[in-house]
Amino acid sequence: MLLGIDIGGTKVVLAVGDAEGRSRASRRRPMALSGDWRADLDGLVDEARGLLDEAGLEASALSRIGVSVPGPCNPATGVLINPPNLPGWRDVPVAAHLSDALGVPARIENDANAAALAEARFGAGQGVDDLVYLTMSTGVGGGVISGGRLVHGAFGAAGEPGHMPIVPDGRVCACGLRGCLEAYTGGNAWRDHLRTIAPPDSDAVVRAGGDPAALLPEHVVEAARSGDAWANEVFGRWLDDLAQGIAAIVMLLEPRRIVLGTIAVAAGEALCFAPLRARLATRLWPRQAERLEIVPAALGKTLPERAGFAVALQPAGR
Amino acid sequence: MLLGIDIGGTKVVLAVGDAEGRSRASRRRPMALSGDWRADLDGLVDEARGLLDEAGLEASALSRIGVSVPGPCNPATGVLINPPNLPGWRDVPVAAHLSDALGVPARIENDANAAALAEARFGAGQGVDDLVYLTMSTGVGGGVISGGRLVHGAFGAAGEPGHMPIVPDGRVCACGLRGCLEAYTGGNAWRDHLRTIAPPDSDAVVRAGGDPAALLPEHVVEAARSGDAWANEVFGRWLDDLAQGIAAIVMLLEPRRIVLGTIAVAAGEALCFAPLRARLATRLWPRQAERLEIVPAALGKTLPERAGFAVALQPAGR
Repeated sequence: MLLGIDIGGTKVVLAVGDAEGRSRASRRRPMALSGDWRADLDGLVDEARGLLDEAGLEASALSRIGVSVPGPCNPATGVLINPPNLPGWRDVPVAAHLSDALGVPARIENDANAAALAEARFGAGQGVDDLVYLTMSTGVGGGVISGGRLVHGAFGAAGEPGHMPIVPDGRVCACGLRGCLEAYTGGNAWRDHLRTIAPPDSDAVVRAGGDPAALLPEHVVEAARSGDAWANEVFGRWLDDLAQGIAAIVMLLEPRRIVLGTIAVAAGEALCFAPLRARLATRLWPRQAERLEIVPAALGKTLPERAGFAVALQPAGR
Repeated sequence: MLLGIDIGGTKVVLAVGDAEGRSRASRRRPMALSGDWRADLDGLVDEARGLLDEAGLEASALSRIGVSVPGPCNPATGVLINPPNLPGWRDVPVAAHLSDALGVPARIENDANAAALAEARFGAGQGVDDLVYLTMSTGVGGGVISGGRLVHGAFGAAGEPGHMPIVPDGRVCACGLRGCLEAYTGGNAWRDHLRTIAPPDSDAVVRAGGDPAALLPEHVVEAARSGDAWANEVFGRWLDDLAQGIAAIVMLLEPRRIVLGTIAVAAGEALCFAPLRARLATRLWPRQAERLEIVPAALGKTLPERAGFAVALQPAGR
């Protein structure tokens, strides 16, 4: 039996489940920090024991622990390095602490990599050994799976597709660099840009209560779906930029499938996936474009539980 | 003992050597096609037997064969698909044919991947598990090694860094797409572009015999080294474009080391590698830039022999 933990900046999800990703018992609560990471992790250990009990399982039924963490980490050592959203947690040996307390192996991965593993094992990437997942959320996180294994890179920090440059000397990104894919297609950056150019009479702004400063990506997606010309134009540009980033990924890695999250899932097949495939047909060689599958993420609200399970189930070694 | 074969469009190199890459006997000759690929491969088998003999080795000393091939291939099946430079060779089962004839396992890889493996094992990438090699020759080929293994992609066609788009709707590439890294930094494309903009009085054009239409990358490199302003300006732009491509690679894969071939090797540390590192310091996050090593390819003329040996020495499986 597996223990999966998804530690976020604002909430934490714990779940006990099996290798097929079926949850037996789970808990979701706000993330409350005591100021002492040891106490915080010991609290998670107590909750995990409670969950096993709730599921009618002995502690000895537990075989592995997987943790999704909100920030840079070293999966080889199990240390969470410097999560921006967890004050007081710095260089925390998450895996070792949980493993010692519960007596089974524990692994950690950053949230985007954990989500990639979860989609690969339980969601839209099932059966595929070569996969790239892009969150397409407030930012553009991601994970690269090659030959069935997560690509960690030389120091555990691979999988930052959101910060591939797509425009020379382009827009400034929140990360400080210029021209990043995220500066064009990340939800926050796209929203901020659109607020400066949105025509007050566009249906998207009407949906934002008439205030361009209140415009959100979902307003643009809804307005585009209902036929608003401006919304369709800017969503088309979003797809152009995303297609350029995906083309770079395909040229380098040739994944069989690309899984796209949040904004793409909300926009759906007709508005997002079909026109994105058409754009890639002009940015890839014919055989690449024919073979590439681009699909929406499938796990939705079950992602936090499944992320921990998928991290736990990674093969040993890198 | 290993048999390494480098099949090129114009020449073929055969070598018998050991796992440390030391050649015991080798042969280099023009590639002559009979019109029958079976006869061509049988010719290589005879030559291989001759080389073993020349090296004073029994046929039974041979343990593995590795072949570098000039075009798309399927390393899993050992089939060379459609090499543009080998008329009459189409869907040729190179590995199976050589393996049957010589009685030992054989593997094939396309030339850029084979070169990446060779630099990783015997050259500038020794001791590094996460490596990207870019040929920087007439085109920009490459190979990606992640966690000690070549990344083949879903259908064996990964490792095309030269065709990552770096400029939206940019220059047309020889491959038919737009804005490819190769369209800006590949030797042929760069040369063709420079011929259209070279000032007749630049030192680079003087080195080309005074004719801009005869300008070659080496003239620009030599002129830049001797202080010509125009040559330094265009070489600086070449470095800008290359840096953008490398930044995308690092964000996605976080290699420990990037190995650059031909043009970069010719330009050297002061003209190419030092200013390239400076450009990457503004295109990567500080920790990434500090950790990344960018070095010249080291094998030079011994590459063809070593390429075959390195292909032969790949671990089993993917």
